[in-house]
Amino acid sequence: MALQLLSTVGLLASGAAAAGHLFPGCQTDLLSKNDVCNTKASVTDRAKALVAALTIEEKIALTGSTSPAFLALGSPATNGGVKEALHGVASSPGVTFNKSGDYSYATSFPQPILMGAAFDDNLIKAVATVISTEARAFNNANRSGLDYWTPNINPYRDPRWGRGQETPGEDTFHIKSYVKSLIEGLQGSDPDYLKVVATCKHFVGYDIENWGGNERYDFDAIINPQELSEYYMQPFQTCARDAKVASIMCSYNALNGVPTCADSYILQDVLRDHWNWTDDGFYVTSDCDSIQNVFLPHNYTDTREEAAAGSLVAGTDLDCGQYYQTHLPAAYEQGLFDDAAIDQALVRLYSAQIRLGMFDPADNQAYRALTFGDVNTPDSQALALKAAEEGIVLIKNDGTLPLQTKGRNMTIAVIGPWANATTTMQGNYAGIAPYLRSPYLAAKDLPGVNAIYAGSPGDPTTDGYPAAIKAAKDADVIIYADGANSAEEQDRNLIRWSGERQDIMTLLAGYGKPFILLQMGDQLDDTPFLHHENVSAILWAGFPGQSGGDAIMNIITGKTAPAGRMPVTQYPAHYVNDVPMTDMNLRPNATSGNPGRTYMWYNESVVDFGFGMHYTNFTVTFANGSDDDTSSWDIQSLTQGCTETYKDLCAFQSVGVSVENKGSVKSDFVTLGFVAGEHGPAPHPIKQLVAYERLFAVEAGATATAHLNLTLGSLARHDDTGNLVLYPGDYSLLVDVPTQAIWNFTLTGDEATLEEWPQAPARQ
Amino acid sequence: MALQLLSTVGLLASGAAAAGHLFPGCQTDLLSKNDVCNTKASVTDRAKALVAALTIEEKIALTGSTSPAFLALGSPATNGGVKEALHGVASSPGVTFNKSGDYSYATSFPQPILMGAAFDDNLIKAVATVISTEARAFNNANRSGLDYWTPNINPYRDPRWGRGQETPGEDTFHIKSYVKSLIEGLQGSDPDYLKVVATCKHFVGYDIENWGGNERYDFDAIINPQELSEYYMQPFQTCARDAKVASIMCSYNALNGVPTCADSYILQDVLRDHWNWTDDGFYVTSDCDSIQNVFLPHNYTDTREEAAAGSLVAGTDLDCGQYYQTHLPAAYEQGLFDDAAIDQALVRLYSAQIRLGMFDPADNQAYRALTFGDVNTPDSQALALKAAEEGIVLIKNDGTLPLQTKGRNMTIAVIGPWANATTTMQGNYAGIAPYLRSPYLAAKDLPGVNAIYAGSPGDPTTDGYPAAIKAAKDADVIIYADGANSAEEQDRNLIRWSGERQDIMTLLAGYGKPFILLQMGDQLDDTPFLHHENVSAILWAGFPGQSGGDAIMNIITGKTAPAGRMPVTQYPAHYVNDVPMTDMNLRPNATSGNPGRTYMWYNESVVDFGFGMHYTNFTVTFANGSDDDTSSWDIQSLTQGCTETYKDLCAFQSVGVSVENKGSVKSDFVTLGFVAGEHGPAPHPIKQLVAYERLFAVEAGATATAHLNLTLGSLARHDDTGNLVLYPGDYSLLVDVPTQAIWNFTLTGDEATLEEWPQAPARQ
Repeated sequence: MALQLLSTVGLLASGAAAAGHLFPGCQTDLLSKNDVCNTKASVTDRAKALVAALTIEEKIALTGSTSPAFLALGSPATNGGVKEALHGVASSPGVTFNKSGDYSYATSFPQPILMGAAFDDNLIKAVATVISTEARAFNNANRSGLDYWTPNINPYRDPRWGRGQETPGEDTFHIKSYVKSLIEGLQGSDPDYLKVVATCKHFVGYDIENWGGNERYDFDAIINPQELSEYYMQPFQTCARDAKVASIMCSYNALNGVPTCADSYILQDVLRDHWNWTDDGFYVTSDCDSIQNVFLPHNYTDTREEAAAGSLVAGTDLDCGQYYQTHLPAAYEQGLFDDAAIDQALVRLYSAQIRLGMFDPADNQAYRALTFGDVNTPDSQALALKAAEEGIVLIKNDGTLPLQTKGRNMTIAVIGPWANATTTMQGNYAGIAPYLRSPYLAAKDLPGVNAIYAGSPGDPTTDGYPAAIKAAKDADVIIYADGANSAEEQDRNLIRWSGERQDIMTLLAGYGKPFILLQMGDQLDDTPFLHHENVSAILWAGFPGQSGGDAIMNIITGKTAPAGRMPVTQYPAHYVNDVPMTDMNLRPNATSGNPGRTYMWYNESVVDFGFGMHYTNFTVTFANGSDDDTSSWDIQSLTQGCTETYKDLCAFQSVGVSVENKGSVKSDFVTLGFVAGEHGPAPHPIKQLVAYERLFAVEAGATATAHLNLTLGSLARHDDTGNLVLYPGDYSLLVDVPTQAIWNFTLTGDEATLEEWPQAPARQ
Repeated sequence: MALQLLSTVGLLASGAAAAGHLFPGCQTDLLSKNDVCNTKASVTDRAKALVAALTIEEKIALTGSTSPAFLALGSPATNGGVKEALHGVASSPGVTFNKSGDYSYATSFPQPILMGAAFDDNLIKAVATVISTEARAFNNANRSGLDYWTPNINPYRDPRWGRGQETPGEDTFHIKSYVKSLIEGLQGSDPDYLKVVATCKHFVGYDIENWGGNERYDFDAIINPQELSEYYMQPFQTCARDAKVASIMCSYNALNGVPTCADSYILQDVLRDHWNWTDDGFYVTSDCDSIQNVFLPHNYTDTREEAAAGSLVAGTDLDCGQYYQTHLPAAYEQGLFDDAAIDQALVRLYSAQIRLGMFDPADNQAYRALTFGDVNTPDSQALALKAAEEGIVLIKNDGTLPLQTKGRNMTIAVIGPWANATTTMQGNYAGIAPYLRSPYLAAKDLPGVNAIYAGSPGDPTTDGYPAAIKAAKDADVIIYADGANSAEEQDRNLIRWSGERQDIMTLLAGYGKPFILLQMGDQLDDTPFLHHENVSAILWAGFPGQSGGDAIMNIITGKTAPAGRMPVTQYPAHYVNDVPMTDMNLRPNATSGNPGRTYMWYNESVVDFGFGMHYTNFTVTFANGSDDDTSSWDIQSLTQGCTETYKDLCAFQSVGVSVENKGSVKSDFVTLGFVAGEHGPAPHPIKQLVAYERLFAVEAGATATAHLNLTLGSLARHDDTGNLVLYPGDYSLLVDVPTQAIWNFTLTGDEATLEEWPQAPARQ
């Protein structure tokens, strides 16, 4: 049977050429006889039937991310090549954009770091829904597969990390909320079919690229059980346990001495056993070449065969790369894995393809009807603009903003390296956008505005400063657009504005005109400008995507009021000297000198996590009673009333918060709720985000109510073994940044364990 | 007068369009009346006459590297834009290559790091002569100016430095010899005219790009007087004092708290006073934007005007950038500098232009007759090939090399990221080459050889390992070409082969075929391969330029015998963890943990500085007597007999070394002489290079004689104040690496100071 199948494949593959994403041949005689095409059988039985038809050689050939020879068996093979869709269908080996016309672009949303700043989960779901719709359209046109290696959810724990821009930020409650909505949007709500496969990465402890003699391929992240469970694992718990993501990617690094792709503790004990991540089609992929890295540079095994077989047996089902294909044959001969191990991997992989509808008739699959007419629709374009607007954070404003441009015949100079940015506005893992609206282009299109442009002021060998100086002198208002660009494989050494940029910025700001610093990209220490009298306003706009410039100018001119909040801590420049990137500890440590990481543990930020100004004033009070009400709950009563499988999800209180717009401008407002207090193991975090709700378009003078839905998980803390425990003690709910309202309460009775954290086995 | 001149300029400039390198208008009525055109006047008087005709506004406008409005006054203005020619006329703002045809390319020699490995000063002079000839041809075609910001001579003291490839290596005697020949070739030997202006950079203490939270723009190099004088200053001493280079570039960094471009101690006390660097037309240029950096990020002055005026007054005559032009006007109004200061700078700058013949009739200037017919001549092409061949270092050979290809119908697989390299072979600061001969192209052209190719084996998302594996399996011999590429603005964190590359290399080497590791680019720790039984040979070929592949294949097949020597220490991978880049100390320090830098102070190298194998065996003996002869000299007799202005240059002994080729292959041999011994202040260096001579084409069985010309400087050492002193004590002359011959001798009598080092003033 196997050989016959293979020859069929050969025929089909030659016909399909380099396409790689064709639907399989359940119409062909040979495959149609296999139960994989029997839509009445269970997913598992169908996958098993297909796998049973394969020889060991064929099975091994299917364990890599590219297996072109087997095109017809699965579709696309088991995976069909790396596909990315972090903030829109992205340029990647498994996605083919057309050179022009249909399928030559896809909607390009802002990077997660800016969308995270919106603190709007519904926005994220809407964005993800557009992305998966466009991915399906591309797939129907044979331009992509349906497994996407999105999202990146390692928490952004160090400001130097080169890939922090790909994440929603540093807070895990925030990431969890964001990623749950994202996965719902990507994977869809069809009970019969996955819209696309999402992949939560990189599992786990990955957030170093190349820093100080360490690179991601051989970094060993030393993380204690407490912080592993309470921080690094949290986003993956949501992905696997709650959002039912179909795929998880193990990472390059080792965790406490074991390369993650070869670690049955995290891949089996935690992921599959503890989180019950065992549905049909759930599979683990390696990062690209990370199986190879198990051998070198990790030196975790003595032989290549042990690295490959060990990873397969540990639970990594797919190899991004060809290390499985190259070395599993010898490993099989050496008896390092058995048929059951590889069958399990292939059944998982094919089950995912079956759940994507790959082996079913197209008739009943709504996703199969999507076309380029569903790509970058007017609604999607509006959503890309809205996503950028919602995320932009107003960090400073002396009253200059919003700028009154109407009827004033105003000349605006838009100056700086990002002033006319194109693809830079997209950040990494981007696709081809239908258009890229720079700040300058957007300013030019403002009615009654004369926009003038000067680019990077810093190249002394060409035009130098004078162009920027001339533009600034000719203008009524100066917008200076600049920022830091991080990159994969390259962490930052510095998180400060360069001397040259400080010089030109303060020079231009000194001309006595409104000076608006438009800070793009990653965070930089804004200390030189925050209290500088000549700097009128600071806006942070991250990587805002295809309509970034329009979003920025809408905010600047007041067409849209800003309400984004900082998704990360803005650290002082000296932070990079205070703690090495390799120190994974979050808690301050007097011995090592680690001053603490994230707003939970670090108290010397330049701009706080959660901070963001408005064009109006909001006051925040509790809807039901005064701020100093105190209440008390008995822990045993709380736990006895909790019937959820996962007790951290049990409701505690839904706290109403009255948000009054006391100014004169209609505005959104992000209501942030943090828990603080003396409870559980010391040290205690400064505070921790437990709930948020974005209120929309609160009219001037009006009051709106937000609901902060607290759970037992909002109150619980992790002990030093990683268990999640409800502790008696004092609690405070702090609302807004800076805090505007505090509700103090207590828990009484004995501590109660909500979750037993699986312990790592003793390592040799 | 000034305004009239300006208007003339306007006319000429508009006619000349963007050219920028036209010869000035000594024919025009107005300029011809100025004494700058009077060829009978002295250079200084001519320059002064031109400067006297300028207003202060015009003078300030001429202080930048680009001053297009003044095109007709100087030619090109005072400088005409950044021009580079590190290893060939290079792509840079002040050089315009044609798109095709004439002037669309220039000869592209190997990077200095490989040419340094040749240890052949005559080669360097020949190369530099070709470069300056081609530069003149480009200038005559109005495609470049004549001031080149070449060479980079900061010693390569840390293997991480991103620009080490631009230098001849880590040893200062070597750099001094190299750079003297280079400058002779660049500046030419015409008594009346400079061929081009060479620029020794970066003065001084510059060799960090961006490492561990430090960047070149604000790095403060803390260097004690001893190591400043004995190491960091040495190449500049040769440039300024001995080679009479016309230009010196101050650097981005500060030295002991003072940004170098604002430091009158180094620019006046050391450079101009101590080294007597005061000839007509000698000028100091800033690095690009380094005047700006004096203000920010160095924060050395309170105002921009102080930064600009302070640098001008300290002795920086030209600003690469526009900071002088922007801020000197206000500084002048504030009285921060006077007319004499700016006049001096402009007289220096124009004197250089006059010495270049810019204001003289073309008739008597041979350089003005050079044309594209003088560019990339057959001789120059041969020289580029020879330069690469001479530098290539044979690091390991089990007898596989030279490869006997003739009549064997051999299949050679050329595999790896550099196997078919093009511009990568040139390294940075390169021009457009007439052709780029990759190792694979060269192998293909070998008679009787079937060459097959596979590129980078490491991209798992596309073709992955299999192509490399297939090529290796199909071949009789495997050449694996790979290496590290450093970059400006980016130091390396790692100096080891990546795990992925180690994996594929040892995999391919395991196929039982001759496996030749062709190590390109910068040094990496070769430990995994040096003693690996499957690795037959290791060649290091750096960045070999336009004929790199041919040079490599000529060495591999034995058409040319290898004789290059390591120009740097190959450090173990862990070295990057042993000492921070920011530690400028060369000597080991138990307290700081610094294990020492360079072969002089570090004794745990993987491959030694000066090491290099041959296809034959050479034995080395002293020509006049046995190795264990001992001799003694009286210090006072030596110094009394020394009549040179600079006593370190006085001859001591010319030591004859007999080099016998005991093998069967004709070969060059680089004779290296080091001094070691217990004399002068402790600690004592392991040894220090004091002389070298490359012998050419020593026939099998023949003996040739090298002459190691020792000077008093070869014996002297620097005390802790930086003075150069001849000390009584034991001396040894060690010849070859590893040492083959030792001559021990002693100096007796009282120590004698050969040079008083100017001390830095006390800093606030």
